[in-house]
Amino acid sequence: MATPLLNCDMGESFGNWSIGLDAEVMPHVDCANIACGYHASDPHVMRRTVALAVQHKVRIGAHPGYPDLMGFGRRSMACSPTEVEDMVLYQVGALAGICQAEGATLSYIKPHGAMYNDMAANLELLEGVMRAVQAYDATLPLMVMATADPEPHRQLAKKMGITLWFETFADRAYEATGHLASRRLAGAVHHDQTTIVAQAVALAKGDALIARDGSALHLPCDTLCVHGDNPESVAAVRAIRDAFTALESA
Amino acid sequence: MATPLLNCDMGESFGNWSIGLDAEVMPHVDCANIACGYHASDPHVMRRTVALAVQHKVRIGAHPGYPDLMGFGRRSMACSPTEVEDMVLYQVGALAGICQAEGATLSYIKPHGAMYNDMAANLELLEGVMRAVQAYDATLPLMVMATADPEPHRQLAKKMGITLWFETFADRAYEATGHLASRRLAGAVHHDQTTIVAQAVALAKGDALIARDGSALHLPCDTLCVHGDNPESVAAVRAIRDAFTALESA
Amino acid sequence: MATPLLNCDMGESFGNWSIGLDAEVMPHVDCANIACGYHASDPHVMRRTVALAVQHKVRIGAHPGYPDLMGFGRRSMACSPTEVEDMVLYQVGALAGICQAEGATLSYIKPHGAMYNDMAANLELLEGVMRAVQAYDATLPLMVMATADPEPHRQLAKKMGITLWFETFADRAYEATGHLASRRLAGAVHHDQTTIVAQAVALAKGDALIARDGSALHLPCDTLCVHGDNPESVAAVRAIRDAFTALESA
Amino acid sequence: MATPLLNCDMGESFGNWSIGLDAEVMPHVDCANIACGYHASDPHVMRRTVALAVQHKVRIGAHPGYPDLMGFGRRSMACSPTEVEDMVLYQVGALAGICQAEGATLSYIKPHGAMYNDMAANLELLEGVMRAVQAYDATLPLMVMATADPEPHRQLAKKMGITLWFETFADRAYEATGHLASRRLAGAVHHDQTTIVAQAVALAKGDALIARDGSALHLPCDTLCVHGDNPESVAAVRAIRDAFTALESA
Repeated sequence: MATPLLNCDMGESFGNWSIGLDAEVMPHVDCANIACGYHASDPHVMRRTVALAVQHKVRIGAHPGYPDLMGFGRRSMACSPTEVEDMVLYQVGALAGICQAEGATLSYIKPHGAMYNDMAANLELLEGVMRAVQAYDATLPLMVMATADPEPHRQLAKKMGITLWFETFADRAYEATGHLASRRLAGAVHHDQTTIVAQAVALAKGDALIARDGSALHLPCDTLCVHGDNPESVAAVRAIRDAFTALESA
Repeated sequence: MATPLLNCDMGESFGNWSIGLDAEVMPHVDCANIACGYHASDPHVMRRTVALAVQHKVRIGAHPGYPDLMGFGRRSMACSPTEVEDMVLYQVGALAGICQAEGATLSYIKPHGAMYNDMAANLELLEGVMRAVQAYDATLPLMVMATADPEPHRQLAKKMGITLWFETFADRAYEATGHLASRRLAGAVHHDQTTIVAQAVALAKGDALIARDGSALHLPCDTLCVHGDNPESVAAVRAIRDAFTALESA
Repeated sequence: MATPLLNCDMGESFGNWSIGLDAEVMPHVDCANIACGYHASDPHVMRRTVALAVQHKVRIGAHPGYPDLMGFGRRSMACSPTEVEDMVLYQVGALAGICQAEGATLSYIKPHGAMYNDMAANLELLEGVMRAVQAYDATLPLMVMATADPEPHRQLAKKMGITLWFETFADRAYEATGHLASRRLAGAVHHDQTTIVAQAVALAKGDALIARDGSALHLPCDTLCVHGDNPESVAAVRAIRDAFTALESA
Repeated sequence: MATPLLNCDMGESFGNWSIGLDAEVMPHVDCANIACGYHASDPHVMRRTVALAVQHKVRIGAHPGYPDLMGFGRRSMACSPTEVEDMVLYQVGALAGICQAEGATLSYIKPHGAMYNDMAANLELLEGVMRAVQAYDATLPLMVMATADPEPHRQLAKKMGITLWFETFADRAYEATGHLASRRLAGAVHHDQTTIVAQAVALAKGDALIARDGSALHLPCDTLCVHGDNPESVAAVRAIRDAFTALESA
């Protein structure tokens, strides 16, 4: 049984400011989403992070965002699809340049934060991102949020000749539509490791989750998003990895 | 007779701000030094400029600078050689990403403004830039300022396995050392087209220039820097091109 | 008869990039909206622009925008009302610091571009801007877009203890709601000087405009927005000024 | 006996990135040097930090730096004295705007990092900073590094009508000239709290320090720089405060 790839945002430090337990979490993930300088990171942080991924044989993904360091790329910006397309090309290329110097190559692309959410909600914007992937290297998979109705995204990807990797979350409650429950709602974020691991295993096995309204929710799951922000999240990653190893050898 | 390549800074607009007569000068040059977003340009300007170079079959060079939009990369910054190395990799990669989307490739690297001057004056910094070129693609030539004593730069390039392209200027007076006369001095910048063309031809033929102190100055000249800032400078480029065509067919 | 104040965006150059005919238009306006560094301008441009306004005895207004130089502050950003409040305070203070060095004082505040439009459409955001004005200096008027129904904005301003200056446009077609017709529509922007002056005079006299659907539109008009982008727009400003002088002496 | 004021860099977080134990160290210092957005901080961090200083009745100082977030203002930039003058005005004004909203006022100005070091080494740059202070509010003291020969700085300040506050360091070894020993040298930074407190007391009492070459060094000391980076430095601040309280009551 092929379990979902574990992906984690990495390299989000910037200049004198450090965040994230990259060194602790890197050994336990499959895919490192590496920030490209628009919402976080700088050339030196990028190089150090690429080298760390190489050391642990982790796939490297470009993690481009909106040009908003102050807002960490979490504020939606009314960029046109063409603007987003060119911003993605710039950032993907920049990380690829760093990779080339470290003897590494890019394996996929995952937009960050508000850009990721905006392209999930807006097909024109998603098409702009896909044009960037297509023009840069159409063999690179694009990570997108899994929902209960992935067909529109699948069809657009097929038209553009792009591969999609659907991404799910083990530590978040879902609405019936497959969208994440708003963080403002009680119970939107799971903090209990047992709950997190159970949801990860369900997603890996293709079992239904229970959405907030009690309905069964099936989500495609090529990859699972995990976090290296603090010791608790790193522990959860290790627990998910152990559970997946057990699944694979079962 | 092979005349020097004409290189010109391009793509220096930024967002809502436009400068440079790129479309007018592009047909007359061999090499477009395209800004990479740190001192000027943005992803959209970069893409438009790459497409223009492709259309005119002009070689594309990465033109990385210090991260100083407000100062247009003209203010020296006390960056370490390693910082400069990583900044160059980032910017070269970003432009290469844009090129890849336009079916183009990079042909050389020329640092901009204060970074260019600083690496001419500081061998450790130059070595940092060379490490970036070497790690990214050691076959890409690096443009450096020609001086009366190019040997130290040649030796370092040989050690690093890098090709140098020595660059000269047709519109500037030189000191006996081969350094450009300070712009503050009377006569430092030539405005007369006849003088400019004559200096270009002398450089192309390997004739000596007359330095400010009256001494004869021999400079290696693989490429000549020209400008597209205004109609006068574009006219000078055309006149140099005509003179070079005459030389080549002589 | 008191005619509306003529206000014009100024000081929108940035570093090496120059735009706007500030010196040409400054003698003909009442109010200079001076960019504060987030969407355009830098400390040196700000100081030069403040000095120019002082020389011509023109009122100085702070013109804060979203932190988006690449997009010139024209892209909406999903900032919270509190974020906008603090961004406005920062930029207003920065311009006030420059003013203090030039012996000048601020006379009003007018947000720029997407921030201006967003606060016109979102009362919570408008209240965030008003909190900034109130906390900084409640005697400074805030420029807002005039619409056919200014009451909600008037009531909020009254609650917050803020003075509003309603702004209209002489070179734009209006919808029946008092919103500007989209630039994408034919006829949305007036280019004919006679039409522009006629609309300015109608607004000054309190006469109704004819909206796109043919209905009569009454707009409050404390100030009229004019432009110094090019010689044509400067000529239009002079023509409006002449027409207003004639009105005042009538 | 009046002991030196304890000053500490504060408000150096930026967007999503947090550094510094501001809340822990604020109760124990006299002066908060608050970053102004060019090398660190953003409008929201500035407002929170000003509010914290107000709560603890700590004097607020503007802490302007070079425009280099990536380098935290620690890289020297070849800015002209006029550029620095205008950058200081901009940042001082921005912080003053935030202060005005919190009912606070600025008490002094202390440039940050490379700008602080550059103005200590370059009288023209120092004069540029002094012009900013003079033009903004000549009653605001300017913090400068104390050296063995403070006369040139005193004379320039007298000419410009500016008050200087000489600053010393309790945790750093000094050269005979009164300059700080390079951090690259063994013993350049004191980590032992007893040593730090002893040096602080010597500076407060006007006793000579022992420079690295063994000579006696007398330094003017209006204010002492302390740090809130980590629990050890906060503990040192408390120990210095206790020692100063004992001195004052002796």
